Amino acid sequence: MSDVAVTERTRVKRGRKKASYDRDTINNIIDEAWVCNIGVSVDGQAMVQPSSHWRVGDELFLHGSVKNGLFQQVMAGQTACITLCLLDGLVFARSAYHHSVNFRSMVLYGKGRLVEDPVEKRTVLDAMLDKYSPGRSSEARPPNATEMKVTAVFAFPIEEVSVKVSAGGPNDDPEDMALDVWSGVKPVTSVVGELIPD
Amino acid sequence: MSDVAVTERTRVKRGRKKASYDRDTINNIIDEAWVCNIGVSVDGQAMVQPSSHWRVGDELFLHGSVKNGLFQQVMAGQTACITLCLLDGLVFARSAYHHSVNFRSMVLYGKGRLVEDPVEKRTVLDAMLDKYSPGRSSEARPPNATEMKVTAVFAFPIEEVSVKVSAGGPNDDPEDMALDVWSGVKPVTSVVGELIPD
Repeated sequence: MSDVAVTERTRVKRGRKKASYDRDTINNIIDEAWVCNIGVSVDGQAMVQPSSHWRVGDELFLHGSVKNGLFQQVMAGQTACITLCLLDGLVFARSAYHHSVNFRSMVLYGKGRLVEDPVEKRTVLDAMLDKYSPGRSSEARPPNATEMKVTAVFAFPIEEVSVKVSAGGPNDDPEDMALDVWSGVKPVTSVVGELIPD
Repeated sequence: MSDVAVTERTRVKRGRKKASYDRDTINNIIDEAWVCNIGVSVDGQAMVQPSSHWRVGDELFLHGSVKNGLFQQVMAGQTACITLCLLDGLVFARSAYHHSVNFRSMVLYGKGRLVEDPVEKRTVLDAMLDKYSPGRSSEARPPNATEMKVTAVFAFPIEEVSVKVSAGGPNDDPEDMALDVWSGVKPVTSVVGELIPD
């Protein structure tokens, strides 16, 4: 258990009790999620795109086409903001106001490093496949030189980052506790099903 | 079936065959998702936050604290970029390169309108609860004046928006089709479970 350093940008100002800067907690949230969102600013206008991601060590990786406009901003050295959110439950309170969701979310600020070393690039692309299914990188036909060339891989340090975790039941006001209104949590889970063969 | 107008910002440049501007398709994706991400630019730095959302008619709604820094940018009239992504499957190709995910994603640009009219505000907050569970707004204790006051609700027009839909099996190269590598799709579903009473 060790914490990342908190910066002004990642210090959680609202819902502070839900905040965490613990590396293991952060890594587990990153690993469980399949999709993140990456935002950059273009002439003062935020541009956000969903993207799949994976982690190796203390870096979060994204990949995509070298021609992608958003990634060109990353390559130009702009600090991106990357978020993700795992939904864990719908919280039904006795009062309308206290309805909420249980979630685990992350906000990360960082500059993307273009992975150019061919050995490193292959290693992290293998790790992406192994996230799909353990050992997959040694089953599939490996990438050829052309495929490696057209794929851009970016590494973002998992350093300037915070997560928020909201869990548990409804937080009704004491005066509402006796109301005859059903309450509780409907858990939400993401399920990866059995293979439908091609 | 009617399309929203395509603008330079929402014209999908990569993966064009996956793009759609059809209102019904857009609305269905918005309705199925529980969490979106909203991005704004602050002094040239993108700031993105996950947020729960809902839809009424041709507007997408977000709510939060009036003190939230990101929402203050929205109130100042900045055009936000709102994204969401539903993950539908992990696609296992015979080649490493053609591994992908099936998804339905949205990117929307728009200015948020602060909902101030008390009747409209109550109506759309009721709609949020009814997304949690049909009829829930008439079961829970209604919001009081204080609760209404501290909750900011923003309406974003569903106008400058595009969605991308990726579905189906792996797209292997012809020369890889005979390889002895298992392939296909593992469907991913989000499941809302039974209520765990409080």
